[in-house]
Amino acid sequence: MTQSTHQTWGGRFSEPTDAFVAAFTASIGFDQRLYRHDIRGSIAHATMLARVGVLTPDECAAIVTGLGEIEAEIERGEIEWSVALEDIHMNIEARLTERIGTVGKKLHTGRSRNDQIATDIRLYLRDGIDAVASELTRLRRALIELASREADTVMPGFTHLQSAQPVTFGHHLLAWQEMLDRDQQRLLDARKRVNVMPLGAAALAGTSYPIDRHVTAELLGFERPAENSLDAVSDRDFAIEFTSFASLLMMHLSRMSEELVLWTSARFDFIDLPDRFCTGSSIMPQKKNPDVPELVRGKTGRVYGHMISLLTLMKSQPLAYNKDNQEDKEPLFDTLDTVLGSLRAFADMMPAVVAKRDNMALAARQGFATATDLADYLVRRGIAFRDAHEIVGHAVAYGIEQDRDLSQMSLDELQRFSDHIGEDIFEVLTLEGSVAARNHIGGTAPDQVRAAADRARRALDVLPDFALEREGDA
Amino acid sequence: MTQSTHQTWGGRFSEPTDAFVAAFTASIGFDQRLYRHDIRGSIAHATMLARVGVLTPDECAAIVTGLGEIEAEIERGEIEWSVALEDIHMNIEARLTERIGTVGKKLHTGRSRNDQIATDIRLYLRDGIDAVASELTRLRRALIELASREADTVMPGFTHLQSAQPVTFGHHLLAWQEMLDRDQQRLLDARKRVNVMPLGAAALAGTSYPIDRHVTAELLGFERPAENSLDAVSDRDFAIEFTSFASLLMMHLSRMSEELVLWTSARFDFIDLPDRFCTGSSIMPQKKNPDVPELVRGKTGRVYGHMISLLTLMKSQPLAYNKDNQEDKEPLFDTLDTVLGSLRAFADMMPAVVAKRDNMALAARQGFATATDLADYLVRRGIAFRDAHEIVGHAVAYGIEQDRDLSQMSLDELQRFSDHIGEDIFEVLTLEGSVAARNHIGGTAPDQVRAAADRARRALDVLPDFALEREGDA
Amino acid sequence: MTQSTHQTWGGRFSEPTDAFVAAFTASIGFDQRLYRHDIRGSIAHATMLARVGVLTPDECAAIVTGLGEIEAEIERGEIEWSVALEDIHMNIEARLTERIGTVGKKLHTGRSRNDQIATDIRLYLRDGIDAVASELTRLRRALIELASREADTVMPGFTHLQSAQPVTFGHHLLAWQEMLDRDQQRLLDARKRVNVMPLGAAALAGTSYPIDRHVTAELLGFERPAENSLDAVSDRDFAIEFTSFASLLMMHLSRMSEELVLWTSARFDFIDLPDRFCTGSSIMPQKKNPDVPELVRGKTGRVYGHMISLLTLMKSQPLAYNKDNQEDKEPLFDTLDTVLGSLRAFADMMPAVVAKRDNMALAARQGFATATDLADYLVRRGIAFRDAHEIVGHAVAYGIEQDRDLSQMSLDELQRFSDHIGEDIFEVLTLEGSVAARNHIGGTAPDQVRAAADRARRALDVLPDFALEREGDA
Amino acid sequence: MTQSTHQTWGGRFSEPTDAFVAAFTASIGFDQRLYRHDIRGSIAHATMLARVGVLTPDECAAIVTGLGEIEAEIERGEIEWSVALEDIHMNIEARLTERIGTVGKKLHTGRSRNDQIATDIRLYLRDGIDAVASELTRLRRALIELASREADTVMPGFTHLQSAQPVTFGHHLLAWQEMLDRDQQRLLDARKRVNVMPLGAAALAGTSYPIDRHVTAELLGFERPAENSLDAVSDRDFAIEFTSFASLLMMHLSRMSEELVLWTSARFDFIDLPDRFCTGSSIMPQKKNPDVPELVRGKTGRVYGHMISLLTLMKSQPLAYNKDNQEDKEPLFDTLDTVLGSLRAFADMMPAVVAKRDNMALAARQGFATATDLADYLVRRGIAFRDAHEIVGHAVAYGIEQDRDLSQMSLDELQRFSDHIGEDIFEVLTLEGSVAARNHIGGTAPDQVRAAADRARRALDVLPDFALEREGDA
Repeated sequence: MTQSTHQTWGGRFSEPTDAFVAAFTASIGFDQRLYRHDIRGSIAHATMLARVGVLTPDECAAIVTGLGEIEAEIERGEIEWSVALEDIHMNIEARLTERIGTVGKKLHTGRSRNDQIATDIRLYLRDGIDAVASELTRLRRALIELASREADTVMPGFTHLQSAQPVTFGHHLLAWQEMLDRDQQRLLDARKRVNVMPLGAAALAGTSYPIDRHVTAELLGFERPAENSLDAVSDRDFAIEFTSFASLLMMHLSRMSEELVLWTSARFDFIDLPDRFCTGSSIMPQKKNPDVPELVRGKTGRVYGHMISLLTLMKSQPLAYNKDNQEDKEPLFDTLDTVLGSLRAFADMMPAVVAKRDNMALAARQGFATATDLADYLVRRGIAFRDAHEIVGHAVAYGIEQDRDLSQMSLDELQRFSDHIGEDIFEVLTLEGSVAARNHIGGTAPDQVRAAADRARRALDVLPDFALEREGDA
Repeated sequence: MTQSTHQTWGGRFSEPTDAFVAAFTASIGFDQRLYRHDIRGSIAHATMLARVGVLTPDECAAIVTGLGEIEAEIERGEIEWSVALEDIHMNIEARLTERIGTVGKKLHTGRSRNDQIATDIRLYLRDGIDAVASELTRLRRALIELASREADTVMPGFTHLQSAQPVTFGHHLLAWQEMLDRDQQRLLDARKRVNVMPLGAAALAGTSYPIDRHVTAELLGFERPAENSLDAVSDRDFAIEFTSFASLLMMHLSRMSEELVLWTSARFDFIDLPDRFCTGSSIMPQKKNPDVPELVRGKTGRVYGHMISLLTLMKSQPLAYNKDNQEDKEPLFDTLDTVLGSLRAFADMMPAVVAKRDNMALAARQGFATATDLADYLVRRGIAFRDAHEIVGHAVAYGIEQDRDLSQMSLDELQRFSDHIGEDIFEVLTLEGSVAARNHIGGTAPDQVRAAADRARRALDVLPDFALEREGDA
Repeated sequence: MTQSTHQTWGGRFSEPTDAFVAAFTASIGFDQRLYRHDIRGSIAHATMLARVGVLTPDECAAIVTGLGEIEAEIERGEIEWSVALEDIHMNIEARLTERIGTVGKKLHTGRSRNDQIATDIRLYLRDGIDAVASELTRLRRALIELASREADTVMPGFTHLQSAQPVTFGHHLLAWQEMLDRDQQRLLDARKRVNVMPLGAAALAGTSYPIDRHVTAELLGFERPAENSLDAVSDRDFAIEFTSFASLLMMHLSRMSEELVLWTSARFDFIDLPDRFCTGSSIMPQKKNPDVPELVRGKTGRVYGHMISLLTLMKSQPLAYNKDNQEDKEPLFDTLDTVLGSLRAFADMMPAVVAKRDNMALAARQGFATATDLADYLVRRGIAFRDAHEIVGHAVAYGIEQDRDLSQMSLDELQRFSDHIGEDIFEVLTLEGSVAARNHIGGTAPDQVRAAADRARRALDVLPDFALEREGDA
Repeated sequence: MTQSTHQTWGGRFSEPTDAFVAAFTASIGFDQRLYRHDIRGSIAHATMLARVGVLTPDECAAIVTGLGEIEAEIERGEIEWSVALEDIHMNIEARLTERIGTVGKKLHTGRSRNDQIATDIRLYLRDGIDAVASELTRLRRALIELASREADTVMPGFTHLQSAQPVTFGHHLLAWQEMLDRDQQRLLDARKRVNVMPLGAAALAGTSYPIDRHVTAELLGFERPAENSLDAVSDRDFAIEFTSFASLLMMHLSRMSEELVLWTSARFDFIDLPDRFCTGSSIMPQKKNPDVPELVRGKTGRVYGHMISLLTLMKSQPLAYNKDNQEDKEPLFDTLDTVLGSLRAFADMMPAVVAKRDNMALAARQGFATATDLADYLVRRGIAFRDAHEIVGHAVAYGIEQDRDLSQMSLDELQRFSDHIGEDIFEVLTLEGSVAARNHIGGTAPDQVRAAADRARRALDVLPDFALEREGDA
C-alpha cells in the first residue's frame, strides 16, 4: 500500500517502506487533531516568505487560499487521511499541491517538519492552556461562592482522619481554592515558556533562506522566536511542564474527590450530591455512587503516568530531533483532555453540593474536638502549654471511659483535672466559640472565611484572560 | 440524551444523569473492544446457570443463540454503541433483550458488572499474553539465527561506551536474547495469576443463587475460581503485573534500539538496516533514519507511564470495587498494543540486519581493546594481576602518545614495559586470539556462542504454546 | 586527598582524580553494607581458582583466612572506609593486601568489579528476599487467625464506599490475605531469576583463565551461572523485578492502611488499635493517631519511586556495564528496608486489632445493605432480575424518604412495591441470613470463611522456606 | 526503651509506644538536618509571641538565648538525638526545657508541629534553591564561555544520530545553555511559591492566641503568611514543584551527559575530558571512563523517582495533616543533594572540556551533511523545494555507491543530476559556507553564536541573586 512516490524523502531510497513499518511509524492517527494549528502556522510562514521575497505575492495568495479551503474540507470531514503520507504536515501539503499545483511545493521552503511540528504543538497547547485556565477559574468561583454560603457551618476538622478541632465548612472549601490558586499560577508560568516560537529552526541548524522570524512570531502571537535552532527542534520541556502542572492539579482534585467520597458515605453523611452526578448499581438497587469524584480520583494516575512517559522519552536523548519525539503527542493530548473533563465535571458539580449542616455539627460535637480549646483556656490561666496538654489528656481519657464529650461533663468533673477551670469554660467548649476564637488571617473563624473569600474573588478578577484577548483580536 | 429508562439502576433515582457526566463516566468508548470476551463470559455464565437449574434449558439456549447473533452483528459493524448504556455489558444486554425479550433480563442473575468486567479483562489479557508470547518467540528465534551466523564476527565490546575488549557480534546478540528469555519467563509467571476466575464474586460478597463456579471456570479455561469475592472484584494486580513485565521488556528493547541507532550512525557504521525499515527527511535529502528502533525506544516511556498510572490508581483504594477502577483499561490496552507492535517490528527487522564485518573488525583493532589480554599474559608469566595491570597501563599511555595500538608496537617497544613479554605476545594481541581465549560458559569465544545458541534454540522448543493449544481446542 | 597511588587503575592516567569527583563518584558510602556478601563471593572465587590451579592451595588459604579476619574487623567496626578506594571491593582488597601481602593482589584474577558487584547484589538481595518472605508469612498467618476469629462478625461491605451488602469481617481479612498470597508467589518467581550467578563474566567478555563457573555457582548456592557475559554484567532486571514485587505489595498495604485509618476514625469506629501502635498530638490532647498504617501508606510512594528510578536508570543504556549502574543500589536497599519494616509493623500490629462488633453490626443495618437480598428473593418468586431490581429501587427511595431501612418496614409497606413479597421476607433481610446465603467458594458465608482460612493455612504450610534451608546448611 | 514520660502527648494513653513502632515512626534520623531552620523559626515565633504579649520580654529572651546555645551545641556535635523524642522539634524543645526550665514549655504556645514542620522545610528548601541557583548560574557561564571560544568550530549536527547538517560546536553548547535557562526560570517561579509562611496555622484551624502572622513572616523573610490554615499544614506542592524542576534539569543533564559520553567514545572522539574527571578499570588497563557524565545520567532516575514518590504520597490524602506526610522529607533532601552535586560536577568539568576540532571537521565532511545546501542552491535557481530534494536524493544515492561525499564529486558528475548546478556550487558545499549561510536569529552561523552568547551573558547579569541579598541582610 505504501508507495515510495508518495513519500517526500524517497530520492535516496531503493525500496518502499514496509507496510507494517509505515503504519507503525505514522503519526497521522493522532496528530490530525493539529490540523488547524498546522494550517495557521503554514499561513504565517507563507506570509513571511512573501514579505522577505522568497515567495511572490501571487504564490503566497494561492497558498493561503488553498490552505483555507483545505481547513474547510477537513472540518466538513471530506479529507481522508493517508498513512502513507505519514503525518498531518504531509497530508495537508499533498492536498495543497493537488489543489494549487507546483506552487504548493514551495511552502516548505526554509522550514522542516522538525520546526513545524514543534510550532504546531505549541500553538495547540497554548489554546489548550487557555481553555484549562477558563475551567479552573470557573471551579474556583464555584468554591468561593459555596464557601461564602457555608462560612458559618461548623464541621469536624480532621488530622490523621481523627477529629481534631472544629472548622467551618467554608474554611475547608477555601483550602481547596488555595490549592487551585497555586495551580493557576503554575499554569500562567508554564504558558510563558510555551509561547516561544521554534519556526525558523528548520531541521536543526536554521536555514540559508533570508527568513524573518520576528515577523512569523508576531503573526502567530508568539512572544519571541526561540534563541537556538538545535534546542528549538529538540525541546519538549513545555509538554513536560504542562503535565507537571496537570499532575499537581489532578493530585489536588484527587484529594477533593477523596473527601467528597468520604462525605457522601453512609458513615459520614456530611453532604448530598444531586442524582444527576451519580450512578447506580446493576445489582444493588439501593446504591447511589459518587462516580464523578471517584473517576476523577482514578484519572490522577493517568496524568502522573503521562508525565513519567514524557520524562522517560526525553531522558538521554542526544540532540537534535530524534524519532522518539513523535511519542510526545498522545500523552500531552490525553493530559489536556483529562484535565479539561475533570475540571468541567467539578465546576458543574460543586455548585450543586448540599451541606447537611446538622450532621456536620453533630459529628463536630463528638471526638473531643474542643480539647485544644480547653488546653488554651488553661494556658490563659497561667499554666504552661505542655502541662495544660497533659491535664486535658487525662480529662479525655476519663471522657472515653464515660463515653461523654468534654462539653457534656459537669463543672465538678472538669475541676477534678484542674482547679483553674471555672464556669466560663462552657462557652469555650462550644463549637461556635471554638471556631470564632481562631480569628487571624488564615484562621477558621467565619469572619476570616468571609474576608478570605473576598480576597480570592478579587484575585480572580485580575487574572489575565488570554482566551478573551484572543477573541478580541478576531 | 440520557434517559433514566435506559439505565439499569434507575429505580431509586429522581433525575436522569447529566449529559456531560454520562459521557464523562461512560466506558463504552474503550471497553467495546472486550465484546468477544464479554459474550464468551456470558455464554459460560448462562450455561452454568442452566446446569444448576437457575435457567431452564430453553432460556439458556435463547440466550446463547442471541449472544452469538450479537457477536456477528458487532463484527459486521452493525451495532451502534450507546453512551447512555454506559459500557459494553449494558450495551450487549440491552441488545439481547431487544432480540430475545424478557428472558434476556435473566442473564444477569447471580453476577454483577463488578465480577463481569474483571472476568472480561482477564480473558482479553490472556489472549493478549499469548499473542505477545508468540511475537517474543519469533524475535528470539531471529536473534538466535543471526547470532549463529555471526558467531565468528569480531566487534569491539564496550563498557562506558569505551572500547573494552573484543567480543563476537553473535555473543552480543545472544545477550539480547538472554534479556528476552527472562521476559518470557516473567510473562509465563504472570499468566498463571491472570488465569484465575472472578466470576461468581457478584457485586462483592458472592451471590445467594446456587451457582457452581467450578463449572464456569472450566468452560472459560480458567485454572480455578478466585478464592475471595471481595478480592476478586477489586484486584487489578494482573494488569499491573503485565505492565511490569512490559516495562522490563520495553526497557530491553530500548537498550537494543539505542545500540541499533549507534551502530547505524555514521560514526559507528557497524550494521546496515534495509531501506524498508527506515524513513527519510523532508528537508535533508541524504538522510536515512533508523525510525523503527528510535520509535520503539520512545515507546518505552509510554509503557512505564501506564504502569505508574495503574499503580497510582490502586494506591489507597478501600475495598471493594470503586469507580476509579474503570481507569484500568486504557493503560492496559495501550500497553498490549505497544508491546505487540514493537515486538512485531523488531521480529520483522532483525533478520534483515546486515553486519558490516570489516568496519567492526577495524573498530575492534582501535582503542587498545586487547590490553586485558596483555595483562593476563603477564599474569600467566607470574606477575600479580594488579602489577600486570599497572604495566599495561603505562604501555597504553605510551600508545596514546604514539597513536599506535598495542599490536602495532614492536617487541622491543613492548619489552620496555616488562621483560616478561616474549615473541608469542602477538598471537595474544590478535582479535581472534582474544575472543577464542574466553572459552568458558558465558564467554565470548565463537564455540561458546554456537553452544549457547543451541541451548537457546532448545529452550524455545520446549516453551508451552498456549495459543497453539487453544487452536487445538477449537 | 585522592592519591593516584591508591587507585587500582592509575597506570594510564596523568593526574589524580579531582577530590570532589572522587567523593561524588565513590560508592563506599552505601555499598559498604555488601561487605559480608562481597567476602563470601571472594572466598568462593578464590576456592574455585585454587581448584583449577590458578592459585596454589597456600595462596588460597591465605586469602580465605585474610578475608575472614577482615569480616571480623568490619563487624567490630575497626575498618575505616576510604573514599579514595571508591567502593567496597577495593576497600576490602586493599586491606587484604595490607594483611597478607602480594598474594592478595592475585584474588582479582579472572574477575572484574563488573561481575563482582553484580554477584554481591544478587547474594545480598537473595538474603533480603528470604527475610521478606518470612515477615510476609508471619503477616499472612496473623490475618488468617484473625479471620478465623471473626468469621461470624458482620460488617457492611462497601463498593464506592457506599454500603453495598453485609459481609463478614473474617471474609474481608481474607481478601487481604489473598493479595499477600499473590505477592508471595511473585516473590518466589522473582527469586528464581535473582539466583543466577554473574561471576565469571569478568569485565564483559569472560576471561582467558581456565575458570570453572559451575564450581563457584555451587559454592555460592546459585542455581546456575549466567549464560552470557555481556548480559551478566549489565543486567539489573532482578533489582527492578524486586521493586515491582515491592510496589504491588506496598500498594496492597496502602489499601489495608486506608481501611484501618477509616475503621479507626470517629465516623466509622469499627476497630480499636492498641495505644502502643499509635501516637498523639503535641497540641491536641485528645488525639490518638493510627500512625503505623498512615506511615506505611505514605511509604508506598517511596517504593513506586524507586522502581521508576531503576527503570529510568536502565532505559536506553548500551551494553555492557556503564557507570550509571552504580545508581542501582540505594533504591534497592531502601526498598528492602521499607518493605521489611512495613511488614514487620503490620505483622506485629494485626494480631492486636480488636473488632468493635456491635458498631460493625449497627452500621451494617444502615444503608439498605440487604436490598440485593430482596431483589434475589423476588427473582426466586419468578420475577426477572432487572425488574426485581427496579422494584427494590422504589422501595429504597421510599425508605430514604421515611428514614427507615427495608427490615424496618412492615409487610404491608413492602407489599406496596410487589405482591410477591411474603412473611418470609424478614428472614432474608437479616444480616445473618444475608451473609449465610452467599454460600459458595469465594462467598462471604461464615462457613466459607472458615473453609477458606483452612485452605490458606495449609498453603502456607507447604511454602518453601529458603531461610530455614540455609540454616540447615550451616 | 520508649517511656511515655518522654512523649509530649501521653496524657490520654495507657501504654507506652512499642519500641519498634517508635523507631519505625521516628523522623529524627533524617529531619535533624533541619535544626538550624527549626531554631530560626522558633526564635521568630517567640519574638512574635512577645510582641503580642503572650510571652514576657524576659521569657522571650530566655528562649532566644537558649535556642542559640542549642544551635551551637548541635554544631559542635554535642547533642545526642533521641528516637523517643520522635523528631527535631521535640528534641530541641526537650533540650530547651532542660536548659531554661518551664519557660521552655511556653515556646509551643499558638503553634503545632504541623505548621512548624511545614515552616522548617520551606526555610530549608529556600536556602537549597538559592544554592542550586548559584551552581546553575556557574554552569551556564561556563557553557557560554566555552561556546564563545568554539563559535567557529564546525562539527556534524545530528538528527536521528545521523549526520544532518554542519553546525558549530558553540551553537551546540548554547542549545544546552537554553535548556538551563528555562530551568532557572522555573526555579525562580517555584521559589515564589515556596516563600509563603505556614506558621500560625497551628494544628489545622489556626489558634485562639492573638498571634500576628505578618510579624513572623517578616522576621523569617517570607513574602506573606499562607491564606488558609487547613491548606497550610497539608500543602506539599512546593516539594513536588521543586522535584518537577529538578526532573527537568536532570533530564537536560542526562542529554548533555549522553552527548559527552558519545563524544569521548573512540568512535566519535570529538572532545577530551581531563583525567581528573575520569576513572579507570580494575581489569582493563587501557580504560578511561567518562564517569561524571555517566553517573549524572544515572542520577536522573533517582530524581524522577523522588517526584513520583511525592506525587504518590499526596494522592487522595484527605485534609488536613496525615502522618503520611512525614515521607516528604527524604525524597526532597536527596533531590536537593543530587541536583547540587550534579551541577557542581558539571560546572567544574565543562571549562576543562577540550574540543578536538580536526576530528569534528573531518566527521562533518562525511555523511553528506551539506546535501540540504545543495537543495537550497537549486531552489535559489528556481526549482521547487520538493523537486530539488528529490534531485539531491539521487546524487546522494550515487555518492553512497561511489563512497564519495558531494563536495568530492566533479562538476560533471553533479550536473548529471541537474543542469542548474554551476561552478559556484563548491563554495556552497564547504562546511564554512554551510554554517555561515544560516545567519538569522537562532541559526548556527558563527556571528549568530557570538551574538547569542552575548545576550545570554547579559541575561545572567540581571538574574536576582537571593543568596547575595541574604548575605547583605546579615
